Amino acid sequence: MEVQIAVAKVNKYATSESGDTLEVVERPNGGLSVVLADGQTSGRGAKAVSQMVVRKVIGLLAEGVRDGAAARAASDALFTDKKGKVICTLNIASIDLHSGTIVLTRNNPSPMFICRPTKIDRIDGESIPLGISRDVRPSITEIAIEVGLIIVVYTDGLVHAGERRGQPMNTAQTLHSMMEDQDPTSQEIADTLLAHAVNLDDNRPADDISVLVLKVAPRNGDNVRRMSVRLPLEGLKV
Amino acid sequence: MEVQIAVAKVNKYATSESGDTLEVVERPNGGLSVVLADGQTSGRGAKAVSQMVVRKVIGLLAEGVRDGAAARAASDALFTDKKGKVICTLNIASIDLHSGTIVLTRNNPSPMFICRPTKIDRIDGESIPLGISRDVRPSITEIAIEVGLIIVVYTDGLVHAGERRGQPMNTAQTLHSMMEDQDPTSQEIADTLLAHAVNLDDNRPADDISVLVLKVAPRNGDNVRRMSVRLPLEGLKV
Repeated sequence: MEVQIAVAKVNKYATSESGDTLEVVERPNGGLSVVLADGQTSGRGAKAVSQMVVRKVIGLLAEGVRDGAAARAASDALFTDKKGKVICTLNIASIDLHSGTIVLTRNNPSPMFICRPTKIDRIDGESIPLGISRDVRPSITEIAIEVGLIIVVYTDGLVHAGERRGQPMNTAQTLHSMMEDQDPTSQEIADTLLAHAVNLDDNRPADDISVLVLKVAPRNGDNVRRMSVRLPLEGLKV
Repeated sequence: MEVQIAVAKVNKYATSESGDTLEVVERPNGGLSVVLADGQTSGRGAKAVSQMVVRKVIGLLAEGVRDGAAARAASDALFTDKKGKVICTLNIASIDLHSGTIVLTRNNPSPMFICRPTKIDRIDGESIPLGISRDVRPSITEIAIEVGLIIVVYTDGLVHAGERRGQPMNTAQTLHSMMEDQDPTSQEIADTLLAHAVNLDDNRPADDISVLVLKVAPRNGDNVRRMSVRLPLEGLKV
């Protein structure tokens, strides 16, 4: 087996900084965690908040702290710092090789999707962002790692895409039509969802949008770990 | 313009954990840093050392500390912790949007390559790993971000590949032949170098090997940031 992680991320139109922060950290007992936070509002202030939250969570995960405890600690730290005036959503997707599971931690009203070859589950139980009050609890979903599993997580920029035009995004439908007649890669799923949202926003995204897709696939060839990152440079010419 | 970062990474044969750690962090003033450390020996002990160094460096970079100062701090911390008995190599490759440059910080006897369309420079001045003594200084190379630039950085597993068989790796030659008649992507360069090294080691790598390639290319299409990670799962069946 292998896990393919893909991210596609775009800034709100005409802002140079995304309020969404996404980072990946190795888990000390094996595996990886992807941490995605979306700070309230957009631009520099939101970026500082989401970076602080991601940094806190990643530091704790690297020490072996469990995902739920790391989320609660980040919420307490944010609440203490901002006195409940600034909130931040958080999603952690961990490939935990110790337990052989994928652990999904969510403090985000935006839903997420767990797709298997036969069905697509929308996970949209109530979930409160970090920093709102003391003792914010994350909702945690743990699933066995098995071939065919696809997880889709995103920030609320995707949820609200198209609302300006009265044509809201239908993520479930887009996912369904992708899964039906193809075996899309995780990057194709992330790119397609993001492109669809940006299109609904008339190519001027009304908010930062980040889409994270994990796919468990049969082992395909060698045992090389690979990572690739594409960073478009906006400020610099050419 | 856009920067394409690619990593290819393999464990020493028959070890489940790589002593090499690589992580990516966003710079608070714009851009990204890729941090690669190789702890002495291999397996769990080496992993703990390289993770500690990467964690330290990333934490400091995220606070806005300059790359060279972060490397020196990590060296002092390692020296204090291990009393000079354990060393660790470090490379930091930063895309610094504040200065419009790529900053390459190196505490690693292994060379690195800076390739431009007309020539390939091998950077192999003396460079001492972290943790050997007090006041270890990194060697720092700063270059303007320009289209056509390719940076190749790696751990010593690549340098020593093939030595067991008396057929040492010639990285410069492999790079030359790739550049001559193609326009390889950063992932193709990283994959080709790694595959060549693994082949020289009879498909049983004598050490952990990590290859990092940065390429500055003309802007190709949209302004979406993308990341993809492939994680082969060794312990789990299928």
